[in-house]
Amino acid sequence: MKTLIIYAHPNDKSYNASILETVKENLSSKHELKILDLYKERFDPVLRFDTIGSGPAGLSAAVYASRAMIDQVVIEKEMLSIRNGIRARGIFPTWWSGMPAILKGFIERVFVAGFAYENTPRGLDGKLTGKAWIITTHNTPKIVLPLVQDYSKVLKFQVLKPCGIKSVKVTQVSPVEYMSDHKRKEVLKKIAK
Amino acid sequence: MKTLIIYAHPNDKSYNASILETVKENLSSKHELKILDLYKERFDPVLRFDTIGSGPAGLSAAVYASRAMIDQVVIEKEMLSIRNGIRARGIFPTWWSGMPAILKGFIERVFVAGFAYENTPRGLDGKLTGKAWIITTHNTPKIVLPLVQDYSKVLKFQVLKPCGIKSVKVTQVSPVEYMSDHKRKEVLKKIAK
Repeated sequence: MKTLIIYAHPNDKSYNASILETVKENLSSKHELKILDLYKERFDPVLRFDTIGSGPAGLSAAVYASRAMIDQVVIEKEMLSIRNGIRARGIFPTWWSGMPAILKGFIERVFVAGFAYENTPRGLDGKLTGKAWIITTHNTPKIVLPLVQDYSKVLKFQVLKPCGIKSVKVTQVSPVEYMSDHKRKEVLKKIAK
Repeated sequence: MKTLIIYAHPNDKSYNASILETVKENLSSKHELKILDLYKERFDPVLRFDTIGSGPAGLSAAVYASRAMIDQVVIEKEMLSIRNGIRARGIFPTWWSGMPAILKGFIERVFVAGFAYENTPRGLDGKLTGKAWIITTHNTPKIVLPLVQDYSKVLKFQVLKPCGIKSVKVTQVSPVEYMSDHKRKEVLKKIAK
C-alpha cells in the first residue's frame, strides 16, 4: 500500500515532528512510504500565472498552462506521486484557523484543473482517489470548535472531497501548548494505533 | 487619513487589478495611501521559527524572537506601517475557500504576539486599531455561501476582530469568471462609491 505523508512544520523539535515520527514508525513495515516535508524541501507556495509551460504527461497542456508553475519539475513529481488512490496523511499545525501558508500554497499549486478535478456545468468533478487522514495541532479549546470556521473543515469538505478523496478522517490535537508531557504521550499512542 | 491597501493577485491584467485601480483612484485625493502589493514585492509567506533576531522598536524582543523572521527589515516596515488605527483594505481572490497562500503567510508572519495581540488567560487581547474593508473575488454562487466555511469569515471574525480591528466590511464579487463585462463595470462603480 502506498502512503504519502505531507508534513508542514518549521521546527524539527516540535510536537508535530513527534507526531510525524510516530506515524512513520507505525507505517513503515506495512506501507510503501513517501514523506513530503514541505519546509525541508523549501517548497515555494506562491502560485504564479505568468510563466507559460507545457503540462506533465497525461495532463492537458492548455489547462495546465493557465496556472503554470515556476519550478515545474518538482511540482510534476509531487502531482504524479499522489495519483492512483494513494493513502495520504497530512500533519501540520493550525495557524489562524487554517493550514500554514506553505500547505495552502501546495493545494493552490498542485490541485489544479486537469489534475485534481475537471470543471463541469454541475461543479467540480474530482479526479483524485484514495483516503486521507489529517492530524493537526492547535490551541483552541475543543468546546469552541463547533462554533468557529475552518480548522481543517475547508480542507476536508471543500478541497479533498470535491477532488474525489471522499474518506477523510480529521484528528485535532488541542490545546497543544497547554498539554502535559503525559497527555502528549497518550495522544501519540492513540495516533500509533 | 492613512489608508493601506494589501493586494494579492499574480496577474496584473486580472479583475482584481481593476478593483485595485478603482479603489486607488477613488481614494488618492482624500487619503495618504500606501499599497502593499504582495506579489510585486515578492513577499515570502513562509513562516520560519529557526532564526533568532531582536524585535523591532516597541516590540518585545523575546516575544518577537519566538517567531523570528528571515527578512526582518522588510517585515518591520510592514508591521509598523499598519499600526496606529490605519484604514486597511484587502483586495484578493478567494482560492479553495480562503486567502491565497501569499496573504495567509502575511498574516502568519506579521500578526505576531507582541504586535497584533497579547496572549492573556482570557484569550487574545487585540493590539491593532482601525477599520478594514475586504474585497474578494471567487466563482461560488452567492446562494451557496451561507452553507460553507471561510470565504473571508476567518479573516474577519478569527483574525482581524480578535486583533482589535472591530469594524470589518466584506464585499464578495462572484461568480467572477461568469460575469459579463457590463456587470463587472457595475461592480467597479459600486466599489468606487
